Amino acid sequence: MSESREKVSSKETEEVIMEATFRALSKHGYKDLRMRDIGEEMDLTRQVIHYHFDGKYDLMSSFLEYIIDQYEGSVEVADGADPRTELDARIDQCLFGPDFEEFTHWDRMKVYHELYTYAQNDDEHQAIFNDHYERIRGSIVEVVEEGIEEGVFRDVDAEQMGQLITDVIHAARGRRISLGHEGAPEEAKQAIDEFILDSLYEN
Amino acid sequence: MSESREKVSSKETEEVIMEATFRALSKHGYKDLRMRDIGEEMDLTRQVIHYHFDGKYDLMSSFLEYIIDQYEGSVEVADGADPRTELDARIDQCLFGPDFEEFTHWDRMKVYHELYTYAQNDDEHQAIFNDHYERIRGSIVEVVEEGIEEGVFRDVDAEQMGQLITDVIHAARGRRISLGHEGAPEEAKQAIDEFILDSLYEN
Repeated sequence: MSESREKVSSKETEEVIMEATFRALSKHGYKDLRMRDIGEEMDLTRQVIHYHFDGKYDLMSSFLEYIIDQYEGSVEVADGADPRTELDARIDQCLFGPDFEEFTHWDRMKVYHELYTYAQNDDEHQAIFNDHYERIRGSIVEVVEEGIEEGVFRDVDAEQMGQLITDVIHAARGRRISLGHEGAPEEAKQAIDEFILDSLYEN
Repeated sequence: MSESREKVSSKETEEVIMEATFRALSKHGYKDLRMRDIGEEMDLTRQVIHYHFDGKYDLMSSFLEYIIDQYEGSVEVADGADPRTELDARIDQCLFGPDFEEFTHWDRMKVYHELYTYAQNDDEHQAIFNDHYERIRGSIVEVVEEGIEEGVFRDVDAEQMGQLITDVIHAARGRRISLGHEGAPEEAKQAIDEFILDSLYEN
């Protein structure tokens, strides 16, 4: 998108296009999606999509960033919370997601996991996911390190633990979506508590 | 496949078709794959495929079971191994896979993870994956329970731990495939050791 165009209305228009993309994706799936399917899901003229995005691929990359921004931006932790409370809040948000008016966290995560699977053949999407994963893992690592510095947690390899928790979250979400295990996020939450977070206090 | 047909030659023919399917998949991908693409990857006449399988969908379901059989059947544990040694062997095999002549464990796992993502819209594939997951998780749960009974491990929720380990394995494989993290299986191995298996001895 051109930097010189009006910022405010562009942002609103982009959001309209992104939500129309959701509706089109839920009907047609990713592989079969055409730009015109998205046009049919919004009141604005279809030319607006072509004005903002340079084809389907450019639009899907922005769409992926849009889902990721919503997902990452949704974590709310009270100021001055102790490290364990903050860890719990971050893990809960990743596992159970925020509330949305239209299309739930799980509708959004279905698209996310589908694009994740395709990322192996797509350098740009792979880079977007890698940056996102570093931020998610990094936010967990940071809290673990804080807890170690404060003497609340024992001295563990924070990077290794952050990666482990991020992996468990991803797998539990994928299991709920692909295998229909409705209880997977809750099970993952309990297992992370029992076997991973509790080990922060032992020895 | 009809039960009455000659079993031995059928089994060999099926393997030829399955390996041809691998070659065709690696060229065309799952969505765009046609039966004729598989025919072009084998010396036998294409009619053989239609004799054995009732269309692309039936073939892909058998193909999924074929990959899963190879994967599950490959775990070798010495008789009388102690529970921790057996756990390590099972986890290693799931993470790093067995050796194959043509198409590596990772080529096979790419197809597996792609079909896993599609399983949300496919009751038959979802059922195959669910059975497979229950066996993988069950084999870990069994060893953990053995260790508890023998007094080698502390009394943990074996089902919960089995699910957690299975989730971590799945996520690490997916991360290697989708995000190109070559070291993911090795990292997962270390994190499972450090934070999950070691907790079997504490308290």
